[in-house]
Amino acid sequence: MKVAVLAGGLGGSRFALALTETLGPGAVTVVGNVGDDLEVAGLHVSPDLDTIVYTLAGVLDAERGWGRAGETWNARAAAEQLGAETWFQLGDRDLGLHLARTEALRRGEPLSAVTARICRALGVETAVLPASDDRLRTWVATPTGELSFQEWFVRRQHRDEVDGFRFEGAEAARAAPGVLQALDGADLIAIAPSNPFVSIGPILAVAEIRAALESRRVPAVAVSPLIAGRAVRGPADRMLARLKGGTSPAQVTDCYKGLIDALVVDEADADEDAGVPAIVTRTLMSDAGARHRLAEAVLAVPV
Amino acid sequence: MKVAVLAGGLGGSRFALALTETLGPGAVTVVGNVGDDLEVAGLHVSPDLDTIVYTLAGVLDAERGWGRAGETWNARAAAEQLGAETWFQLGDRDLGLHLARTEALRRGEPLSAVTARICRALGVETAVLPASDDRLRTWVATPTGELSFQEWFVRRQHRDEVDGFRFEGAEAARAAPGVLQALDGADLIAIAPSNPFVSIGPILAVAEIRAALESRRVPAVAVSPLIAGRAVRGPADRMLARLKGGTSPAQVTDCYKGLIDALVVDEADADEDAGVPAIVTRTLMSDAGARHRLAEAVLAVPV
Repeated sequence: MKVAVLAGGLGGSRFALALTETLGPGAVTVVGNVGDDLEVAGLHVSPDLDTIVYTLAGVLDAERGWGRAGETWNARAAAEQLGAETWFQLGDRDLGLHLARTEALRRGEPLSAVTARICRALGVETAVLPASDDRLRTWVATPTGELSFQEWFVRRQHRDEVDGFRFEGAEAARAAPGVLQALDGADLIAIAPSNPFVSIGPILAVAEIRAALESRRVPAVAVSPLIAGRAVRGPADRMLARLKGGTSPAQVTDCYKGLIDALVVDEADADEDAGVPAIVTRTLMSDAGARHRLAEAVLAVPV
Repeated sequence: MKVAVLAGGLGGSRFALALTETLGPGAVTVVGNVGDDLEVAGLHVSPDLDTIVYTLAGVLDAERGWGRAGETWNARAAAEQLGAETWFQLGDRDLGLHLARTEALRRGEPLSAVTARICRALGVETAVLPASDDRLRTWVATPTGELSFQEWFVRRQHRDEVDGFRFEGAEAARAAPGVLQALDGADLIAIAPSNPFVSIGPILAVAEIRAALESRRVPAVAVSPLIAGRAVRGPADRMLARLKGGTSPAQVTDCYKGLIDALVVDEADADEDAGVPAIVTRTLMSDAGARHRLAEAVLAVPV
């Protein structure tokens, strides 16, 4: 059984791990968000892809939820002493990845090829693909004005209310090599419990990917990122409340209108209408057992 | 007494320290080589300026002769694991400086202003100026073909014989703010015991700087980088032998034709003709005492 999964950052990476642990790496293709990519002093940083790769490689700092375990911060301390902006934190080992990726991109290697090389070097056998090799950037409309995704999310700690989004470059962006093949060849398409707006939204903003989901011949299932109407982490609940009028499963489904056939919801949300058939399980991926249970629930969707 | 000193990397930085220790930081302006600047994954690295600044700040790794003391190498290890080119070694703390500088340059801050900020942050009171804020790059002609300076020097360990140089951008480059004022306002112009071709050569390739030296109204003195016809470090002796036909003081002077009034040579070279009045002392800056002795000898040039 082959699964293609659309994924953002931490929730997406844990879900990719859950599927990989349950099905084996050869059965899973992860299509990762690149809308939150940014340049730091010209270095290309792909936070969501990196969280996915680090998670699958077993080197993510699980407590922090981003970056590498056992990280050192000497570059950052030096940059800070010298007056640099350091609100986007880069650990030393993490910087090594950004150096390697940026060098390769500047040589003309596509992001998908760089990502594949990084995976191989870190022993990740699951296929991890960027949604697109083309430039795609999420901008967030707020009462303060339009902010780049990371400025809104990290620098301003997502405290600004969100009025909408712009996915710069999405119109022209092509799906990265392998993405459409993975969606076409999958027995199941899954959408990870990531933020529907800013983690999955940029992926679906790539016309080819949206069209592939719209014309799917296999079931597509999303895992709700909410438990009892609250996001496990991050601002998804506030955004759903403001932009969709509520935080029930139906509002999550509404983000994926026409694109999913079922929604996996937590037991805490079992009584709520989901707008599509609901699969009820415990969705918090607190350990390997919990990950496996969630993966099994997703894979139990009638294919 | 005010001294303006043209300087390259390690020898230049030690000589700048010698003058600073002897005269006080307010009396010394260092004009540093930028011909060996390079981009690593788009990060702007200024090896000579950094060696000077780190030396004056007391944070240079003296044994290695470049980079910061107590450095860590986690970024490099990660980049190497991921297949990046790591022949130009960047320590983690050093990377922090490159991040800060690159960010500032990309904001439009000139290299001279960035360098001044770095100096302030590191407690360096001596004025350290890049020769130019404009792009200036040294290329080395070898039997293998033309190589960028760092590719020749670091990557290929300066094993290729040198047939000549090209200072890309030098024709259009302006002297950085403060450079001409420092040369004009100095009581003495000094050329550090740096490689005449690739450390001092790029500085003198800036037309305004060369003209300022040619029309000087104060004495200019160079310190020979050779002791008994051998470079203390690096390939200056091989280059002098090949390009000037020998490694005696006269060949060093020949590199500075019309630009210096005296040459400081080591006692080991006392008997050789220098082509200009020679000042004989011990030139190896092995410790603070040796640095002070050399500085005093240079400053004893009749002003």
